[in-house]
Amino acid sequence: MSDAHKTAEASAENLRRIFTVPEAPDSTLARLEAEIARNLQGFLNERIVATQRSLADIEADFGDARIPEQPVFVSEQADFLLEKVVAESVRTASPAFVGHMTSALPYFMLPLAQIMIALNQNVVKTETSKAFTPLERQVLGMLHRLVYGREEPFYAQFLQDSRHALGAFCSGGTIANLTALWVARNNALPADGDFAGVGHEGMHRALRHHGYDDAAILVSRLGHYSLNKAADVLGIGRKSVHAIEVDARNRIDLRALEARCRQLRAGGVKIIALVGIGGTTETGNIDPLASMAAIAREHGAHFHVDAAWGGPTLFSARWRHLLAGIELADSVTLDAHKQLYVPMGAGMALFRDPAAVRAIEHHARYIIREGSRDLGSKTLEGSRPGMAMLVHSGLRILGRRGYELLIDGGIDKARWFADEIAATPDFELTSAPELNILTYRYVPTAARQALAGADAGTVARINGLLNGITRDIQRLQRDAGKSFVSRTQLGIARYGDEAIDVFRVVLANPLTDRQLLREVLREQREIAASAALAAQRAQLDAVLAPAVAV
Amino acid sequence: MSDAHKTAEASAENLRRIFTVPEAPDSTLARLEAEIARNLQGFLNERIVATQRSLADIEADFGDARIPEQPVFVSEQADFLLEKVVAESVRTASPAFVGHMTSALPYFMLPLAQIMIALNQNVVKTETSKAFTPLERQVLGMLHRLVYGREEPFYAQFLQDSRHALGAFCSGGTIANLTALWVARNNALPADGDFAGVGHEGMHRALRHHGYDDAAILVSRLGHYSLNKAADVLGIGRKSVHAIEVDARNRIDLRALEARCRQLRAGGVKIIALVGIGGTTETGNIDPLASMAAIAREHGAHFHVDAAWGGPTLFSARWRHLLAGIELADSVTLDAHKQLYVPMGAGMALFRDPAAVRAIEHHARYIIREGSRDLGSKTLEGSRPGMAMLVHSGLRILGRRGYELLIDGGIDKARWFADEIAATPDFELTSAPELNILTYRYVPTAARQALAGADAGTVARINGLLNGITRDIQRLQRDAGKSFVSRTQLGIARYGDEAIDVFRVVLANPLTDRQLLREVLREQREIAASAALAAQRAQLDAVLAPAVAV
Repeated sequence: MSDAHKTAEASAENLRRIFTVPEAPDSTLARLEAEIARNLQGFLNERIVATQRSLADIEADFGDARIPEQPVFVSEQADFLLEKVVAESVRTASPAFVGHMTSALPYFMLPLAQIMIALNQNVVKTETSKAFTPLERQVLGMLHRLVYGREEPFYAQFLQDSRHALGAFCSGGTIANLTALWVARNNALPADGDFAGVGHEGMHRALRHHGYDDAAILVSRLGHYSLNKAADVLGIGRKSVHAIEVDARNRIDLRALEARCRQLRAGGVKIIALVGIGGTTETGNIDPLASMAAIAREHGAHFHVDAAWGGPTLFSARWRHLLAGIELADSVTLDAHKQLYVPMGAGMALFRDPAAVRAIEHHARYIIREGSRDLGSKTLEGSRPGMAMLVHSGLRILGRRGYELLIDGGIDKARWFADEIAATPDFELTSAPELNILTYRYVPTAARQALAGADAGTVARINGLLNGITRDIQRLQRDAGKSFVSRTQLGIARYGDEAIDVFRVVLANPLTDRQLLREVLREQREIAASAALAAQRAQLDAVLAPAVAV
Repeated sequence: MSDAHKTAEASAENLRRIFTVPEAPDSTLARLEAEIARNLQGFLNERIVATQRSLADIEADFGDARIPEQPVFVSEQADFLLEKVVAESVRTASPAFVGHMTSALPYFMLPLAQIMIALNQNVVKTETSKAFTPLERQVLGMLHRLVYGREEPFYAQFLQDSRHALGAFCSGGTIANLTALWVARNNALPADGDFAGVGHEGMHRALRHHGYDDAAILVSRLGHYSLNKAADVLGIGRKSVHAIEVDARNRIDLRALEARCRQLRAGGVKIIALVGIGGTTETGNIDPLASMAAIAREHGAHFHVDAAWGGPTLFSARWRHLLAGIELADSVTLDAHKQLYVPMGAGMALFRDPAAVRAIEHHARYIIREGSRDLGSKTLEGSRPGMAMLVHSGLRILGRRGYELLIDGGIDKARWFADEIAATPDFELTSAPELNILTYRYVPTAARQALAGADAGTVARINGLLNGITRDIQRLQRDAGKSFVSRTQLGIARYGDEAIDVFRVVLANPLTDRQLLREVLREQREIAASAALAAQRAQLDAVLAPAVAV
């Protein structure tokens, strides 16, 4: 270790060194990088999802609110991170981590991300980003074309036209949904004579001026929670998000949607937006987008599609028809850190009309001035990193065909796994996969037989006990750390109104194989038969005995 | 290059390889990393700020909206990025880049960021982040303590208590300001009997229920543009942001503020928040925070301090008094990617009251469930990267003393540079530095003499011409690429109502030295005397001749 790093004492000279890029190939930095790379490789290649150490226990390592007075060595901090943070992280890249939408990254993302971090560009303005600005506009154009498929002259005209924007790049799907609904709200309650528009006047004056009693956003009851959050933030109110019933395949009930639209308008309510879901978070189902677009048009509402998860299905020649109608949306949310496989922190709201974002355009005196090319005039966020570079790299290095293989592989695997679950006596498939997401639960044969013929009260009692068993299996499997499925609650028509606890599986990692999925089921069955669940099994047996006897 | 990379054709086998971390030390990955590291080192050590290639020219490299059908080689994309993106980026790390708040990074951020990217944790929930969740809470606690300085038992109780939060980590200052004002709005218009609160009911019903005609946010006219954006998003409206006059030192006029508060309340307006500025973006001045806190208290308003830039001044024993009163704020915005020197994409809203965020708390069925430790229940964003790890590393590796040296060094340098400008005949200091930001403009001696005695019309004419010269010098200096200062427009009392164009210098890079700052002035004087500005000089002379004659 060089002298500069032997003493961690704060001095102007040390500061100078710390802000200077070391050039020697055998520098502390080079050694640090090698050690980190080795350690990360070990972490990423390990076959467990997480250690068994409890979160409460881990919290003890992060309990001190004091900022150290004197510096610690870089090597000391690196060791701390490797031991206390890396080792106690979740291997989201593991093929056995099939519970959430955070998955493995293509290996090339890591060295390319170095470029982004080292350059430390800020794409809010061209003065701190230069090439990153046209690059981000190109990425938005590529995905706009994937969704809307406009002709070449359209992109030749708008791709790099600073007065327009094909979308807004942001930190993730929540900000993308918020941005899209912000645009929808401002376009729904626009300037008019002396009235400057809702953005300037606020919701209270806007509704009054335009003669509405209230505003509304309509989405199926499987809509992502970020939509409620957006309605709260936007001053529309969570109560004004109307959760519409779904059919047996978890898709919005169009008749209920139409009826609600008519009822709202008759009551003097402005419908700001209809939101279609392009892959529900819980079950991966897709709303009938073309029909929703028609209903939105009829009622003069903005049509937004939340395709944060399912959008990349458009890469697949075989499955893109599932999203038919998405090209009719006024705006579409895509998450790049989901099925575009870039690191965490990249989402997009795309807009069919390149002039739509004018509804939220803003300027300042020192940047994003009127007429500038600065991207910051059309985004919710201000300073932003150059994540678009990684989306660009994914699109070029994988190509459409590469993403298609990923999408097709995931959907095939989900269908296979659904068949496997259906064929396994102790499990019940609770939502068939349309994309690469499915849900199921543990239901021993005796319970299944009992559920088939029982009265509503008994069904509710049995399901109550099964819910507890599902929750415990999920928790114990997670804590054991060999594999991870998540859980949620679904309304399932055949079981009445009570929510049913289910396992949720998301199959995005191409390295997840059938053997591993069989292993997940085997382990769940093992936990169900273990001592930890003995009391619950006994309770279930007690309820089942008379039920079966009947 | 290994066979796997010789053929870029999309196949399941290639996909498998691309998602597998290569283990061989002489792999393509290792070679790619070495090449990128070498190239980045060259880029970061170069002594220019940007190439002279125009943005319009660069756009031609990013004009294609088509996603390639077949993959391109990783090495081909890396070469493209190095040649077309890295080479055409802005060297924000250059000591001669003194125009914006994006600066150099300590070298250790780069290898440590690798850990964050490779782990790809998602801190919205513990199931995808584990140790990153308590780590983020600790970082929020460390900065809470820096601002509020509560006692040990307070942090022992709240630091890791999932029912409370000392702050909300987010992608930057804009989202932090929005989050703070969201909390302020929801607490100002709370639930009450059958009324569920503004978050559920919307702005229109909330004002009606609570009996207000309107809502207001008050801030000096030097407030950051994100505050107007937040008022727009929140349904409060940009018109309801009241821009209060500033004194000669760019600090909010307390009398005007008090008068406006009284006037608004008399008119039935609910004052949602007063916003104090802890370092104005344009001039780095600090509002009288303690007095503003008292006014906010008197009027029952939330007191927010936007210390995105100046917050880290609290590290300095010598200068922390400048922020006196910040500990009385209900919420404080800090940007970590500014003076905490972490890579782009990290901000925080801190809350004095650990229960304040309950006003925006939300839940879902599959994550951030009631009672969980998931951070996502108390943030505006959903999925988020583990940037807190880099803040943690900065705080430990630099220590309080290290940050203090950075802050003290920047302020000293700014004061020296202000003196230098004041002593240079051709320049006029337009705002003296309180922190490490100052503004000035080019004013030849003859013009200065003329301005001193002229009537208002002549002053306006001369300043109009000087404004054009300032804008051109800034642009030509930027385009030449050797150094970079930014520009903005300020109201300057002695010159009447017309806005004055000024150069803006931000001194955050510890490697920026006096020699370099003298060089910036020398180059500006050279541009002013160059052929490019001949016509403007002639126009100025024509106005000055009679003015001087009088």
